Amino acid sequence: MSESTYAKGLEGVVAAESEICRVDGENGKLYYRGFSIDDLAEHSSFEEVTYLLLYEHLPTTKELSDFTEKMRFQRGIPTTVQNMIADFPPRGSLMELLQSVISYLSGNVIHTIKHSTDCNCRRTLHQVAQIATVVATYQRLKEGKSYVEPRTDLSHGANFLYMLRGEEPDEYEGKVMDTCLLLHAEHGFCASTFTARVVASTYSTCYCSISAAIGALYGFLHGGANERVLTMLEEIGSKENVAQWLDEALAKKSKIMGMGHRVYHTKDPRAVITERHLQELAERKDDFRLYDMLKELETRFRERMEEKGKPLYPNVDFFSGAVYSLLGIPKELFTPLFAVARTAGWLAHILEQRKDNRLFRPKCLYVGGEPVEYVPIDKR
Amino acid sequence: MSESTYAKGLEGVVAAESEICRVDGENGKLYYRGFSIDDLAEHSSFEEVTYLLLYEHLPTTKELSDFTEKMRFQRGIPTTVQNMIADFPPRGSLMELLQSVISYLSGNVIHTIKHSTDCNCRRTLHQVAQIATVVATYQRLKEGKSYVEPRTDLSHGANFLYMLRGEEPDEYEGKVMDTCLLLHAEHGFCASTFTARVVASTYSTCYCSISAAIGALYGFLHGGANERVLTMLEEIGSKENVAQWLDEALAKKSKIMGMGHRVYHTKDPRAVITERHLQELAERKDDFRLYDMLKELETRFRERMEEKGKPLYPNVDFFSGAVYSLLGIPKELFTPLFAVARTAGWLAHILEQRKDNRLFRPKCLYVGGEPVEYVPIDKR
Repeated sequence: MSESTYAKGLEGVVAAESEICRVDGENGKLYYRGFSIDDLAEHSSFEEVTYLLLYEHLPTTKELSDFTEKMRFQRGIPTTVQNMIADFPPRGSLMELLQSVISYLSGNVIHTIKHSTDCNCRRTLHQVAQIATVVATYQRLKEGKSYVEPRTDLSHGANFLYMLRGEEPDEYEGKVMDTCLLLHAEHGFCASTFTARVVASTYSTCYCSISAAIGALYGFLHGGANERVLTMLEEIGSKENVAQWLDEALAKKSKIMGMGHRVYHTKDPRAVITERHLQELAERKDDFRLYDMLKELETRFRERMEEKGKPLYPNVDFFSGAVYSLLGIPKELFTPLFAVARTAGWLAHILEQRKDNRLFRPKCLYVGGEPVEYVPIDKR
Repeated sequence: MSESTYAKGLEGVVAAESEICRVDGENGKLYYRGFSIDDLAEHSSFEEVTYLLLYEHLPTTKELSDFTEKMRFQRGIPTTVQNMIADFPPRGSLMELLQSVISYLSGNVIHTIKHSTDCNCRRTLHQVAQIATVVATYQRLKEGKSYVEPRTDLSHGANFLYMLRGEEPDEYEGKVMDTCLLLHAEHGFCASTFTARVVASTYSTCYCSISAAIGALYGFLHGGANERVLTMLEEIGSKENVAQWLDEALAKKSKIMGMGHRVYHTKDPRAVITERHLQELAERKDDFRLYDMLKELETRFRERMEEKGKPLYPNVDFFSGAVYSLLGIPKELFTPLFAVARTAGWLAHILEQRKDNRLFRPKCLYVGGEPVEYVPIDKR
């Protein structure tokens, strides 16, 4: 590629090699370090998957219990951070606050050897358990409730719901929440993961790299899709309105949120799992409103697309917002929850970047003018 | 380039076009929007240069006074942010705190139209005047002193020294500080500027993009060179020790800090200006210790390099640390001051990115293993 025909947005340009995540778009398969997402969702936990992503193998019983103990005992956040949350302007976004808190927390950690060693990254990551606590605490304070001390006997997902609600979720809800985090833990390169690697390539701290990644996820071209799915459902209102709403939306050439994926040419494997969760939650709560709307939308949309010969299938965001909603989580927390989950993947990429590091410093093509003479202000 | 021979660190890969900054490495020239750094350092101010970078032309008298008024009246920081600074763990780095504060401040701003419009970026940038206040306040609180309210009748550089010291600097010192900021305001692509553009490409806020850039600058492969020059001078101790120190350093193949530049094959034009400032400050303060050491080191080093046929010249970091030091600024503040200055350039790049945006999303080459079967934990 010549300099004058560079790829905007680095589209199609390989920026790094990675052993972490394989997306098989043709067959609708996703693997974390070789393990299929279906198996992991069925048998594993967010903590085990975090271990897998970071240590490159499934843990033994001893390894897992040591790891989860470290993570769980670091879930609490200092009073200073609780104050930051309480003082944050109501019109601000939780994503801005998360980005801020994560780099602030970096100051609490001793970063050895210029933050550069792998083991140091792995050691400090346990404290990133705190990110879930920040999200839950933000919501509680916003509702005028008080900070809930995290528990150490609950999974990452169940403990999040506990901190959010102030009471323990039932086992099924805890498991669903934990699996949702697991499903979002990693997905190869996206703008935020790339950001994390660029920042990590300077040997900045893991925290500062993750904080930067959160900044990227905040952008509406990147994060926020499942929140927008829920907004769409609110707009549609009921299953009966789906057909008419869809016709109007397609006539206006509006984007149907949660449909289609850059890589998957089938139904996103995470959507298959999330749909099952949604159906089960709907049955347990005897509340099929969101489920019915989504299934109706999926069916009608597939029919329309088949007529046009352009099949598009649900992605992970299509059902996940409704799942969160049935778990009692307000939609403003959906993108922050993505950050809670993806922190595991970001850290894996930071570690991988550090293993064979080269500073990211692409070129910039100067296309500005020739030198001009400075004119004093009274002569302009 | 085939996928299997990708460029590590995107070295040599063009990631974007830019009209902002031209570095003429052969002739040792630097231009901001066509205006040479020599003219700008001689006649302009940090505020005027910020205007130039963002609005793409030199301001009229009216435009400049409107712009500086907006910036100056936004220099103060809210009590909540003063508390964040006071509460920050002493072992943390000011860079971590800066990254945190900038995204926190994002919450204070109303971001219209999904943060995406140019004018909104330009409007919120005035508040980035606050970054200098955070740096000065951090140092004051660290020294057990109190917050100094910024003044609106001083230049950006003079006001920084005023807030740091609690008393007004003389005119010359204020001018030197302001020019130092101007010299560091922009320099094309580097890891932090690239980070700012990647984050901005998601339509995250300007603040969140700058916060991420600060995270990249914190890494020791990127920022911190002038701080390390000063550490080197402290190690050398006196002009008389330079020759012996240099021989030993070269024998050990140590890197001589502040020497050589990826792009400039001559003396960095900013180093020429900074050297003049250093000499003048040394004369005024009758303190030639740092100046003499640096000049001795420059001369001796050039002799050694000429013997080897590998000429290397001072870059901007070679003299700037000594200038800051003579202005009474502790070296822990040098990299944060780089961020204070570069915020102008980062914003210009964010605006440029938004003008013709494409989300940065390069590819990642999967080099991991084939699918493997999940093994239950008791069988591992």
